[in-house]
Amino acid sequence: MNRTIVETTRERIKPVNRELMQQAQARLDAKTKPPGALGRLEEFARRMVAISGTGSPDTSKKVIYTFAGDHGVTDEGVALYPKAVTTQMVYNFLAGGAGVNVLARHVGAEVRVVDVGVDNDFGDLAGVIHRKVARGTRNFAKGPAMTREEMLAAITVGIDLAEQCRVEGIALVGTGEMGIGNTTPSSAIIAAISGKAVRDVTHRGTGIDDDALELKIRVIEQGLAINQPDSTNPLDVLAKVGGLEIAAIAGLVLGCAANGIPVVIDGFISTAGALIASELHPNVADYIFAAHRSMEIGHSFMLERIGVEPILDLNLRLGEGTGAALAMSLIEAGVKTLNEMATREQAGVTHE
Amino acid sequence: MNRTIVETTRERIKPVNRELMQQAQARLDAKTKPPGALGRLEEFARRMVAISGTGSPDTSKKVIYTFAGDHGVTDEGVALYPKAVTTQMVYNFLAGGAGVNVLARHVGAEVRVVDVGVDNDFGDLAGVIHRKVARGTRNFAKGPAMTREEMLAAITVGIDLAEQCRVEGIALVGTGEMGIGNTTPSSAIIAAISGKAVRDVTHRGTGIDDDALELKIRVIEQGLAINQPDSTNPLDVLAKVGGLEIAAIAGLVLGCAANGIPVVIDGFISTAGALIASELHPNVADYIFAAHRSMEIGHSFMLERIGVEPILDLNLRLGEGTGAALAMSLIEAGVKTLNEMATREQAGVTHE
Repeated sequence: MNRTIVETTRERIKPVNRELMQQAQARLDAKTKPPGALGRLEEFARRMVAISGTGSPDTSKKVIYTFAGDHGVTDEGVALYPKAVTTQMVYNFLAGGAGVNVLARHVGAEVRVVDVGVDNDFGDLAGVIHRKVARGTRNFAKGPAMTREEMLAAITVGIDLAEQCRVEGIALVGTGEMGIGNTTPSSAIIAAISGKAVRDVTHRGTGIDDDALELKIRVIEQGLAINQPDSTNPLDVLAKVGGLEIAAIAGLVLGCAANGIPVVIDGFISTAGALIASELHPNVADYIFAAHRSMEIGHSFMLERIGVEPILDLNLRLGEGTGAALAMSLIEAGVKTLNEMATREQAGVTHE
Repeated sequence: MNRTIVETTRERIKPVNRELMQQAQARLDAKTKPPGALGRLEEFARRMVAISGTGSPDTSKKVIYTFAGDHGVTDEGVALYPKAVTTQMVYNFLAGGAGVNVLARHVGAEVRVVDVGVDNDFGDLAGVIHRKVARGTRNFAKGPAMTREEMLAAITVGIDLAEQCRVEGIALVGTGEMGIGNTTPSSAIIAAISGKAVRDVTHRGTGIDDDALELKIRVIEQGLAINQPDSTNPLDVLAKVGGLEIAAIAGLVLGCAANGIPVVIDGFISTAGALIASELHPNVADYIFAAHRSMEIGHSFMLERIGVEPILDLNLRLGEGTGAALAMSLIEAGVKTLNEMATREQAGVTHE
């Protein structure tokens, strides 16, 4: 039945409206500026028109979903911080003190924190969207991270939230995550899907040293060898070496594509989720904006494979949705030039 | 006497406070994030602290100065649009319909339009800062663009505005410009100062074709040959092949450095002005943020020579202050992470 939700969502995804995109560009070309002079802001504007299907998109409602989940693979010592930090950071998100809170406030976006797999019982703690599938994944160095059912349940969390965004009229969705150890499954995913050497897609996460990096590479290699994920089956890869928050992000991206909602993916871990969604349907990429180029070396391969160009390059590597927040504001800026700039006609500016 | 203002301003410029910069970084390192994980946002925050001399800079007051001026060199056919567009765009700025108006509104900055050299009599038109030095420069292909007195008067306009910013408590100043033909003097300036071939620093401006580009290169080469600007004397270069708005920007940047105000320079033309200021004193660069990497090929050489790294790379080439507006918001974001993020101590997050 969950399988059905992923499948039916997938089947609803359509290419964006190319005609609307051309119309938007024609309108941009009539503005008081040389054609193309606003560069990628014009790309953002015409894509937002094409995705939303409206000539003058409203960008006022912006939401960042920060999915939290824990990772059994931290038992192998791949992360710098203890697992408890995932839980502690959930409380920090609720108190408004984390990086994503500050940056989301700055750009006028709302942060929604989703517990999809934290190894802590939050009870009915207010301010959290409680969608826990499991108290973290299992250690994928020794077997599958998730059962197929857990993976599908976590994807469904993201799909459900995308449906809710459509109902609420959210104009722009951002992804974010918190999960100590989650660069490890992200590297495993891109290695499994692309066939690239683990060493070429694995980096320092929150800042591990050379020895820990070697360990991390060996752990991922072992996980791939033991689990043998099917590189042509993204859901198999996701279940075996992924994460609950990564699955939820995959679902959110898939659901946004199905519902015609533009989605801004954050850094390395979010892009791992988006990659799963993109592998499930070739038109998912039409709905994705890549917030920034992460410091993680595997990130560029993911972006290339999805076929999206990052907006920012500020050496960010915090995750949470911090890069997504900043990029959302730039996308909004592009839309505003379309909505608010005067045409040469209106301003009485001499045409060339 | 004007000479004295430039000189006395220059003499007031000091290196920024390195100790405050280190203190700011130490505070950033105590926040709920791995050290350095916010990448260049952390650089923005610590530099803003060092420039402003306060531990928690207030970024609420942001102003973009858009300087307008005309260029006699347009007689040579170097620009795609007629000179009248400079005047028409001034009216567009006042009506709030230009790109810089839209983007400044988006980031909460105020746009102030300064007539420093438009070839039009605006009378006492409200909304314009009337500081006209001349009705445009002379054609530098045939002789000096400005007299030394005109150049100094235009620089003084920028210096005066920086002084006023200090009085008003402006936290962050942006530069912008409007002047049909003004990529031509900007290329001439970097060619004269760096000694690079005109061809290597001259590009298509608002979008001229191959023939017009060849013409533009020949015109600049001719201007440099006739005027023989002294490459070791930035004010001589500015007077002979510069522009009135470029001189005002040089003055604004110089004045901001003297008054401890961070200044965000926009694209190619603004950077030409900033380059003049930077050549006048080695510490000017400490106060400069480079908004973005312009599509103009000469821009990178200017940025390198000043010693600043651009913040955005969005293929912008509109000028006006559009890139500065977007970058100001990212700088503000960096400052807010310093001012608003919780420390690990405050949030009860386990230290490594």
